Amino acid sequence: MAVRPPSQINPGRIHQALTSYQLAMALKGAIELEVFTHIAAGANTAAAIAPLCQGTEKGVRVLCDYLTVHGFLIKSDGAYGLAPDTAELLDKNSPAYMGSVAHFFTSPTMMNKYRDVAALVRNGGATDHTLAPNDPIWVEFARHMASMFALPASIAAGHVSKAGEPAKILDVGAGHGLFGIHVALRNRAAEITFQDWDNVLEVARANAEAMGIAGRFRTIAGSAFEVDFGTGYDVALLPNFLHHFDFATNIALLKKVRAALKPGGLAAVIEFVPNEDRVSPPDGALFAMRMLGTTPAGDAYTFIELDNMLQAAGFGAGESHSLAPAHQTLILARKD
Amino acid sequence: MAVRPPSQINPGRIHQALTSYQLAMALKGAIELEVFTHIAAGANTAAAIAPLCQGTEKGVRVLCDYLTVHGFLIKSDGAYGLAPDTAELLDKNSPAYMGSVAHFFTSPTMMNKYRDVAALVRNGGATDHTLAPNDPIWVEFARHMASMFALPASIAAGHVSKAGEPAKILDVGAGHGLFGIHVALRNRAAEITFQDWDNVLEVARANAEAMGIAGRFRTIAGSAFEVDFGTGYDVALLPNFLHHFDFATNIALLKKVRAALKPGGLAAVIEFVPNEDRVSPPDGALFAMRMLGTTPAGDAYTFIELDNMLQAAGFGAGESHSLAPAHQTLILARKD
Repeated sequence: MAVRPPSQINPGRIHQALTSYQLAMALKGAIELEVFTHIAAGANTAAAIAPLCQGTEKGVRVLCDYLTVHGFLIKSDGAYGLAPDTAELLDKNSPAYMGSVAHFFTSPTMMNKYRDVAALVRNGGATDHTLAPNDPIWVEFARHMASMFALPASIAAGHVSKAGEPAKILDVGAGHGLFGIHVALRNRAAEITFQDWDNVLEVARANAEAMGIAGRFRTIAGSAFEVDFGTGYDVALLPNFLHHFDFATNIALLKKVRAALKPGGLAAVIEFVPNEDRVSPPDGALFAMRMLGTTPAGDAYTFIELDNMLQAAGFGAGESHSLAPAHQTLILARKD
Repeated sequence: MAVRPPSQINPGRIHQALTSYQLAMALKGAIELEVFTHIAAGANTAAAIAPLCQGTEKGVRVLCDYLTVHGFLIKSDGAYGLAPDTAELLDKNSPAYMGSVAHFFTSPTMMNKYRDVAALVRNGGATDHTLAPNDPIWVEFARHMASMFALPASIAAGHVSKAGEPAKILDVGAGHGLFGIHVALRNRAAEITFQDWDNVLEVARANAEAMGIAGRFRTIAGSAFEVDFGTGYDVALLPNFLHHFDFATNIALLKKVRAALKPGGLAAVIEFVPNEDRVSPPDGALFAMRMLGTTPAGDAYTFIELDNMLQAAGFGAGESHSLAPAHQTLILARKD
């Protein structure tokens, strides 16, 4: 170690980034302890919250201060309050509660995929991927992540189907089924076909029945690349599916989807879509790292890339629709 | 699952926080791949960087875009550049390079301590702590983290010793030894006594010799709570030590330190110090979670708390000195 004048640059931001796993785990811990729920119910000090979650006052104070620095709580005169998003999404008594997503995001299986990012970069994708038939991770995903997709699904539904107009809808890689279910909720004349692995379809089926569309759906079990979709669909939903695969694989699938559509039928691709600069907006841009870590060749595709895939498969020019305030984008393309 | 209008709140921020371990691991991966070094040397596209790190172009692009969204790189017309802090601190050819800290922060040992934050909150601290005699984690810390402390150490040195004035300095829990070493560098008449576990002292010794203070230091091996410090010190440095322990333990240690000082001698406590609101500034406030995860009863103490400990041990009133632009604080208190 040579003697030298030390840098005058604060290393705090690098320090914080390298310990940011603590944020993921602290937020998960707070959800498990129902801290947001207790605060919403009026317990707004560490002393008041601690007995409600079998916590120590010190532990609750450290956790709540930590979440305050990160903006998930607010603190005023020693009392904690909820930020707008945590009030709506992490209070168990809110109808929009989505705390279950913590389980999926911070599962050891998911975290482990990022233990060696240098290897992911060298490989250009994951070796330990999640695309094997009936991989149980997709049941976990469908069970725990559905709450994140209610908003984009409900907005997308308004773009693909009109109330009362009979429509045959194919939901490819349906997962939790929410994208198809919201079309069926909006349009009582729609019939939905959910395709996914058999184990995942159990979740879609349960959701569809719980949300009142029993009798208006059927299922096709197996790989989207292998099953027979049938024909005559008005709309094929591809929600959060294409990002798992490379260009050639997606074009082949889109050709198969196109063959299943009626003339004039609509492909509806829902994705996290980065701008062409690939570094904005955050949700779209950061999604590429999700795919690098979990798929062999998937990516966060830009609109131009998705449009190219659709046109290469024989569809007309794609149209992009923001699903804001949801953090996803809908791309529509028609079978001419 | 009941049918309900979905929340109109974007869940993106919660989504990003729950996956923030990816940021820690992506930054670590980029340091391992020397991405910052390659960009500093002029390779500023994914295509140019990839062959330099045996990476794939796609993998490098995804990593660099991800780091751009988080502000560690900048991107303009498809070319990457370094942010001011990554240019100074993460380019291997910069004299202030501190990439080695990634190894410590993201080590499985450290990350594992946060696998169950709810349990930490219930326990009020770590069960799997790092305070056992000769715990090898402190050798890792001393080896890999020293670069983060050069700046606060050099600024603190100016507060505790005058050039040319003979001074006997005790460095308690010296670790890498940088706080004592910087006093010795500033004041050629200073003699330093480094105290720490024997295995950790090897690092302090090597640093002291490499930085040219051989012959002006000695060591005391063992626990700060058990060893004989000797007497007659002008200054006792306590750099990043008190945060590991509770009030009573710290007061007992400070009494022992006071006994080792000359009349008029100075205790110099260096800490991450949150404001009294405990949620600012970020570096001080977030540090409490570091201690909850790694110590049974440690904490990020406020100035008033540290001052109370010092006075309870018989010192005069403490004085707080910011070590900005470093993210630490120096508290000085005199033995009357």
